[in-house]
Amino acid sequence: MPKPPIDLIRHALEEDGAQADVTTLCTVPAEQQAQASIIARQSGVIAGLAIAAATFRELDSQVSVELLVEDGTTVQAGQVVARLSGPARSLLSAERVALNFLGHLSGIATLTAQCLRALEGPRAHILDTRKTTPGLRSLEKEAVLLGGGHNHRFNLSDGVLIKDNHSKAAGGITQAITLARRLAPHLLKIEVECETLAEVQEALEAGADVLLLDNMPLETMRSAVELVRRIAPGVLIEASGNIGTNTTRLAAVAATGVDFISLGAITHSAPNFDISLEFT
Amino acid sequence: MPKPPIDLIRHALEEDGAQADVTTLCTVPAEQQAQASIIARQSGVIAGLAIAAATFRELDSQVSVELLVEDGTTVQAGQVVARLSGPARSLLSAERVALNFLGHLSGIATLTAQCLRALEGPRAHILDTRKTTPGLRSLEKEAVLLGGGHNHRFNLSDGVLIKDNHSKAAGGITQAITLARRLAPHLLKIEVECETLAEVQEALEAGADVLLLDNMPLETMRSAVELVRRIAPGVLIEASGNIGTNTTRLAAVAATGVDFISLGAITHSAPNFDISLEFT
Amino acid sequence: MPKPPIDLIRHALEEDGAQADVTTLCTVPAEQQAQASIIARQSGVIAGLAIAAATFRELDSQVSVELLVEDGTTVQAGQVVARLSGPARSLLSAERVALNFLGHLSGIATLTAQCLRALEGPRAHILDTRKTTPGLRSLEKEAVLLGGGHNHRFNLSDGVLIKDNHSKAAGGITQAITLARRLAPHLLKIEVECETLAEVQEALEAGADVLLLDNMPLETMRSAVELVRRIAPGVLIEASGNIGTNTTRLAAVAATGVDFISLGAITHSAPNFDISLEFT
Amino acid sequence: MPKPPIDLIRHALEEDGAQADVTTLCTVPAEQQAQASIIARQSGVIAGLAIAAATFRELDSQVSVELLVEDGTTVQAGQVVARLSGPARSLLSAERVALNFLGHLSGIATLTAQCLRALEGPRAHILDTRKTTPGLRSLEKEAVLLGGGHNHRFNLSDGVLIKDNHSKAAGGITQAITLARRLAPHLLKIEVECETLAEVQEALEAGADVLLLDNMPLETMRSAVELVRRIAPGVLIEASGNIGTNTTRLAAVAATGVDFISLGAITHSAPNFDISLEFT
Amino acid sequence: MPKPPIDLIRHALEEDGAQADVTTLCTVPAEQQAQASIIARQSGVIAGLAIAAATFRELDSQVSVELLVEDGTTVQAGQVVARLSGPARSLLSAERVALNFLGHLSGIATLTAQCLRALEGPRAHILDTRKTTPGLRSLEKEAVLLGGGHNHRFNLSDGVLIKDNHSKAAGGITQAITLARRLAPHLLKIEVECETLAEVQEALEAGADVLLLDNMPLETMRSAVELVRRIAPGVLIEASGNIGTNTTRLAAVAATGVDFISLGAITHSAPNFDISLEFT
Amino acid sequence: MPKPPIDLIRHALEEDGAQADVTTLCTVPAEQQAQASIIARQSGVIAGLAIAAATFRELDSQVSVELLVEDGTTVQAGQVVARLSGPARSLLSAERVALNFLGHLSGIATLTAQCLRALEGPRAHILDTRKTTPGLRSLEKEAVLLGGGHNHRFNLSDGVLIKDNHSKAAGGITQAITLARRLAPHLLKIEVECETLAEVQEALEAGADVLLLDNMPLETMRSAVELVRRIAPGVLIEASGNIGTNTTRLAAVAATGVDFISLGAITHSAPNFDISLEFT
Repeated sequence: MPKPPIDLIRHALEEDGAQADVTTLCTVPAEQQAQASIIARQSGVIAGLAIAAATFRELDSQVSVELLVEDGTTVQAGQVVARLSGPARSLLSAERVALNFLGHLSGIATLTAQCLRALEGPRAHILDTRKTTPGLRSLEKEAVLLGGGHNHRFNLSDGVLIKDNHSKAAGGITQAITLARRLAPHLLKIEVECETLAEVQEALEAGADVLLLDNMPLETMRSAVELVRRIAPGVLIEASGNIGTNTTRLAAVAATGVDFISLGAITHSAPNFDISLEFT
Repeated sequence: MPKPPIDLIRHALEEDGAQADVTTLCTVPAEQQAQASIIARQSGVIAGLAIAAATFRELDSQVSVELLVEDGTTVQAGQVVARLSGPARSLLSAERVALNFLGHLSGIATLTAQCLRALEGPRAHILDTRKTTPGLRSLEKEAVLLGGGHNHRFNLSDGVLIKDNHSKAAGGITQAITLARRLAPHLLKIEVECETLAEVQEALEAGADVLLLDNMPLETMRSAVELVRRIAPGVLIEASGNIGTNTTRLAAVAATGVDFISLGAITHSAPNFDISLEFT
Repeated sequence: MPKPPIDLIRHALEEDGAQADVTTLCTVPAEQQAQASIIARQSGVIAGLAIAAATFRELDSQVSVELLVEDGTTVQAGQVVARLSGPARSLLSAERVALNFLGHLSGIATLTAQCLRALEGPRAHILDTRKTTPGLRSLEKEAVLLGGGHNHRFNLSDGVLIKDNHSKAAGGITQAITLARRLAPHLLKIEVECETLAEVQEALEAGADVLLLDNMPLETMRSAVELVRRIAPGVLIEASGNIGTNTTRLAAVAATGVDFISLGAITHSAPNFDISLEFT
Repeated sequence: MPKPPIDLIRHALEEDGAQADVTTLCTVPAEQQAQASIIARQSGVIAGLAIAAATFRELDSQVSVELLVEDGTTVQAGQVVARLSGPARSLLSAERVALNFLGHLSGIATLTAQCLRALEGPRAHILDTRKTTPGLRSLEKEAVLLGGGHNHRFNLSDGVLIKDNHSKAAGGITQAITLARRLAPHLLKIEVECETLAEVQEALEAGADVLLLDNMPLETMRSAVELVRRIAPGVLIEASGNIGTNTTRLAAVAATGVDFISLGAITHSAPNFDISLEFT
Repeated sequence: MPKPPIDLIRHALEEDGAQADVTTLCTVPAEQQAQASIIARQSGVIAGLAIAAATFRELDSQVSVELLVEDGTTVQAGQVVARLSGPARSLLSAERVALNFLGHLSGIATLTAQCLRALEGPRAHILDTRKTTPGLRSLEKEAVLLGGGHNHRFNLSDGVLIKDNHSKAAGGITQAITLARRLAPHLLKIEVECETLAEVQEALEAGADVLLLDNMPLETMRSAVELVRRIAPGVLIEASGNIGTNTTRLAAVAATGVDFISLGAITHSAPNFDISLEFT
Repeated sequence: MPKPPIDLIRHALEEDGAQADVTTLCTVPAEQQAQASIIARQSGVIAGLAIAAATFRELDSQVSVELLVEDGTTVQAGQVVARLSGPARSLLSAERVALNFLGHLSGIATLTAQCLRALEGPRAHILDTRKTTPGLRSLEKEAVLLGGGHNHRFNLSDGVLIKDNHSKAAGGITQAITLARRLAPHLLKIEVECETLAEVQEALEAGADVLLLDNMPLETMRSAVELVRRIAPGVLIEASGNIGTNTTRLAAVAATGVDFISLGAITHSAPNFDISLEFT
């Protein structure tokens, strides 16, 4: 379990002026103690609890946090997921930052799980993309894992994915693959974006390890999968390109037999998860 | 116009490994030059163009960026909003981070503008909240302005907003207002959360400058507005509490005559704006 | 109670080379333990004790610090305010940084208290200004509170104060107030600088919430206070402008009936408080 | 000429919310240009001009600054020391931070120069101490140089100064000097604090390079100087210990023939220099 | 070409006190200009020139640097590799940091090139390892490339390398490979450390993409290569384990037919490259 | 004992991706506990143990580390120097960074000790130089101390060392010494680089405190030492200039009677110390 990102937590508390919460400082006595619960207001997959707990403790080490469930748990509307106790001022001043983390990350985990349920039957993985919120990539990718998804490459340095512009710049798909094979670190596979069957054929012949079928009509996608399975059974296939989170569409894409479906929407357009803190 | 947040841009480029884009380094010659366009793929209000431009220049000062519209402009699907030229490698390696900023911030500006359109006729302002993505509050609040909304307080240090837990801790609404009046900086107004007409009455008598009507049924909200206008005409009124972005609901809330409607959804649940970069 | 500013403490220890105190490392055995007292050498209001304690502990977590009084206490010359024990090296190496904090902040608290005493009888508050030492604003403003003063706005983002140059730029006091009312966050009051009775009149008519009487002769100030009390009893009045810390002058300004007197000198010209550390 | 401390300038602008100056943003049009002058309101030695100029440019690279005098110049009340032109918003928003640097540093330079003038005739140097404001040591020590003073060691790592507690810990002055000679870097001289003639004698015999006469009566100081000049003519002598900035006292100490007089007050108790910015 | 690591350069200049070079400030007039050459004192492959140039410019933007050769060039003893001109003070104060970068990185590039020459004939690549100096990994790995070597994975996040402890923890080589295949990002190949032929056989059967032959006697290594080529021709082979930089030993390892030889010594034990700066 | 450099440790762990060790996360169960030993694979002086321990604890506070020897101890090949226990994942993920510190710093301490042994008989000190790895100066200089060497000045701000270029710029050795005497802080001695006996003579007459004999033939060096001892017995003598770590050469230089021999090679060319971690 990775350490909570203390620098980000500190920055978020500072951004929210949590150390100088003028309302709380004026109205709540310094010595007042309080108890509170964090309660899910919808069903879904919870993510960000460890970070929320670290947020309260970062503001005030006297706050104690008891997590009733772990990150990744499916919870119901009304379910208490954590209990807090400590100085009332600190609970109030850290509340918004903690809930902002929880709402954002649980939203991603929940949408990922919803997309996965749409695929039941055929066996494709849901992948995230690099379409994440600047500064939050690690957390968002972890939320995807918690929702049951898989992670694509973390960034541009740890994977080779030849897109059409790379192929054009290199003089063609074959040339691009050859260059990457020669120059890229030997532990990286080579993935190639293809939009037509001809490109699939060329990529396979040039030795691609993974194919990205981008914006392909379902019919073409099916033919591409068939072609790959026949002539290069070790090669992996990813479908991509504004597929969205519509259930029927996802099921149809999965039915083509691809290995992975990558979805920008699970990180960049997940609605906030409804969750609140109540004093008890 | 505030300076682009260079530290965040740098962090985002680093997070994406843009300096070590192994695919681009392997397949695109160092000396190759290119031109590209940033194209809106949907209609809406654009935000983040200045940041996107700064992102390309931060990675490589040889990239030149021409903005065809300003942040805050309403654009159409298919409209070219910026033109880029420079080393092909740099355009490719900075593309994703730049688009992540644009998609996120334009999404917020566009949703804000949609909510505002729902209010036409009655004269309420749309306000943002502190329900923002950790680390991005300044940018998200600026996107709200670009979409036509107004900003609520930036953080806990620059506004007094007495919520129910503050009132309880102080011994009641009256006591909380009295404490804040005595202790808070003299340039801050005092806003008080009220859930019932009795609370509205008490807050007005204790000298609140602004009322927050939280989770009030429409009927009660109307009565509250009427009460305020009658006995304390200088007091401002804000409606809040999971109002959401539904058009009919927004119009109904606005019709009660409140001055402000604050919406967490415009920052925490705005869908990504569809925008892409194409080489030309 | 805000957390001690650990980053500033660390920076100050580094700036003083406390980790590489060559004299102490050469002459004091590593295992030697010592006790010491921090002793006020003059009477006044102590401030910075919590920070001084954190400074010793930051350099060496084996130093234990017992505070005999709290920050904000009025102490006498010769009074022991804290006792320290721990490795002799660490006491010696952190001494100067800790005393620098104590001397600077207690100086501010003490001067603030002196100014307040000059006002006894009439009921005006002493306010600080933004004339603080770069990097130390939070600490200096807290020292003002400890001395019995009140804080003006923390910085340019959390209060509206229309000065003469703003009025000129906007086309007049009335126009400036109108613009601020329309554009500024709704939780901020609007304060307006006035130098003449005519400006006071205009500001009141345009709806100013607070007036700043700047560099006004006492006679004019009295007239201004009278005018405000008569036609706008809810409006607050602040006197400002090189008032200084002279006792007689302060009493005279307070006698005009203003609500606040703001004094740059309490932060930018407070003499250091005499305090020392003695080994026991 | 050292580079302006950009990190500190940035921090100070941030601390003052200069990027979010709500008053200026509301009342001053973005396109408005302005000219302004920085004017000394008292006579003295100016310091901080280069930093003030960098402050304006850091906030907005479109501000141009013309320095009419250099740091270290003696100026008269009413003298214009710099002219500024650029966006009115930026001049207004950076004004306070720039003046805070100027007032603080010119105050130190001016007080240093005043102390030096008190010594005319006898030839002693004025030295600063480590009694500086946390975070500002470099700037304050540079201001001392500009005022005509000299710098003592910058911090604990770049000089050996054996105080009474070091001597006690080592078992005596002789032992402390012997240890320092053996263990300290060979480029550092060894200074020893002495309070009596017996200690002076011991320090000289043990090979001290420099003596610090601490809190010595004038008569004893004279005898100490005589003793040193007679038996160890190469050894330097510094007088210290709450000497203060009183003119007569300074002249008397200098008349004893010491080489250096170190004064904490020139950095920790210098009154702010009166200086302002006027639009033209 | 990656940007010079400005943060590291700044830190190194600060670490060397280059802004406060007391000798230079005392003895060299501020206005004095100078020319200087950087001269290789031995033959080898130069690396770090771009960083050295950035070091001078970072200290003083008035220094101009002309690089006579590019990083990666093989130079001779006595060859001038760069010419500098600018303020004499800045050339002197930045000299040591610039040379420290050049000596360290050119040492690595030169040793890498020497190892490569030992292999002439058989076709193996020289790989670096993660045995680098803390804080300098990027620069050291770039120096390896400049010397003709190849880079292994950059860090633990961008490659799968199953060592014996991983296999033991997973319950055997087969189980470890199966787990990695299921859980690791799909763009990463799986490399497995083997010490015996039995392990090689097991790894191949479990589907390893790359084998690391660790500390294997030459005879066993030859058999392993033969086995791999026969039954899994697509699998890559790396030799590792204290191979060292001895020429004969390197040639013998290469002659076994492995694809890669990884050498910790090229980064962690490369002798400094002799290079100096001379004023002209 | 200085605190471990936590920022550098954190940076090194981040640089190595230790929080995202994909191999370990895939193959080692989260709950698995393990024990391991750190074992010297050669004889020498160990350095970096405290830092290695801090590295493991920084990654995971549940790792416990028992140091069997202290930094600075001479160890034998095969000797266990520390025992670790804790989560297997954390031991594996922090191993490389910890060993990189140990190998680098123990290499320096060991080479320093070897050079010292070469001097037995005559009594010269071994000094380090400013030829250190950027970012690691403190650690490397501490390793030199652990190996029995002494530290030269830490950086350009804490010592005066007049090299030939300084003398030329000042108009000669005499002028340079005079300027430094007048302008440098009074606690710094003045060291002067000399290449000939004439320069030695001039430096002594101008009052140098320390001489640096640079690149002098042994015969000249002997004459220089004799000259200094005769006419300026308090002056210290340092030999420098590509002396190297050859035993015979070192003994010969020491035999000339110099006080110090400074060696760049002990920091910039020390071979890595062979040390490993074994699970038990």
